[in-house]
Amino acid sequence: MAIRTEFDQSLRDLQAKLLHMGTLVEEAIHKSTEALVNQDIALADAVIDGDDELDRLQLEIEDSCMKLIAMQQPMAKDLRKISAAWRISVELERMADNAVDIAKSCRRIAGQLYIKPLIDIPLMSEICQQMVKGGLDSYIKDDKDMAIKMSEMDHKVDALYKQVFRELLAIMLEDPKTIAQATHLLFIARHLERFGDHATNIAESVVYLVTGERAYLNE
Amino acid sequence: MAIRTEFDQSLRDLQAKLLHMGTLVEEAIHKSTEALVNQDIALADAVIDGDDELDRLQLEIEDSCMKLIAMQQPMAKDLRKISAAWRISVELERMADNAVDIAKSCRRIAGQLYIKPLIDIPLMSEICQQMVKGGLDSYIKDDKDMAIKMSEMDHKVDALYKQVFRELLAIMLEDPKTIAQATHLLFIARHLERFGDHATNIAESVVYLVTGERAYLNE
Repeated sequence: MAIRTEFDQSLRDLQAKLLHMGTLVEEAIHKSTEALVNQDIALADAVIDGDDELDRLQLEIEDSCMKLIAMQQPMAKDLRKISAAWRISVELERMADNAVDIAKSCRRIAGQLYIKPLIDIPLMSEICQQMVKGGLDSYIKDDKDMAIKMSEMDHKVDALYKQVFRELLAIMLEDPKTIAQATHLLFIARHLERFGDHATNIAESVVYLVTGERAYLNE
Repeated sequence: MAIRTEFDQSLRDLQAKLLHMGTLVEEAIHKSTEALVNQDIALADAVIDGDDELDRLQLEIEDSCMKLIAMQQPMAKDLRKISAAWRISVELERMADNAVDIAKSCRRIAGQLYIKPLIDIPLMSEICQQMVKGGLDSYIKDDKDMAIKMSEMDHKVDALYKQVFRELLAIMLEDPKTIAQATHLLFIARHLERFGDHATNIAESVVYLVTGERAYLNE
């Protein structure tokens, strides 16, 4: 096979793995918040158990990236395409950890009557899911503008986080019996806020991939 | 220069950068908790401002790693030594973010009378500092046992975190006026707990570097 064709094929394999990982992470964050809303411990456990597969995938992607760089010695944009895949896989692994943390918190408060209606937290999760999807799409399509647009969704996640934070603080102040559950909900909102930050990091990687210039989005 | 000598020289340069980054991160976590204990806003600001330099260093290390892999096509352990440097630099960047988060929380509660004596939080920070140092040492020395020993310090960090969590919950329950500050202290302790997790990830990278087998420490 010609070197270029071989490189393109290896890159396609790498991208397929990365897309698969992205889909799993999107599902993990969706399931973890579903588990929370429906107090579904089995679903929370599925998220926790699924994390090993994601760790394994990340390592596979890392190995593929190194092999590709060593064997093909890509330059400029080809090299950036590979390093972006590596970086995105690391972010996806952290996002999966956020989903696991949410699932664990959800287990701890399962069976309790919730101290507040869970509307904003699932909304944060929905935006986060769109952000992962948009991040992977923009990577595959080399689309800088799509990446930046995705990163801007993080403002909404941050605003929702602040709102949840303030609301939970007020609930705790009014009724100290709520404190234990409120701290768990606080952490869950925080994990989603972090998830949005990781998605923003993905957007930054895509901008660097396309332009060759480092970008600091949302700062 | 012979290829091997050139490789060794480039590797030494890379390691020097990584060690420098490690020292800065150790200082950042030290300063952020000093700022907390002494309510020193200027010091907190120094930690926040210093983060750009750490981000820059991480990108430099990443570029050096890719160039080394592409130019020298290292195999087996040489390749693992480089990928470990990359991975460790990513962890160090996250640890620096933890220090920044602590500095930001510290700014928010500066000037307030603390609701509890700050003994356990600085202790967590001290252990975290030892963990970074041990992690970098074990990387430079290819010392798997040193890395594992370092990762075991994370149990102590986790135990202290649980203790702080319980104590703060009790304080909030007793006096709801403490809730706002308590949630900030809770987040600070959480950032230190995360810092310990990142250090554990460094230990895992070192074990992989030395043995070629993936290790999952503290699970």
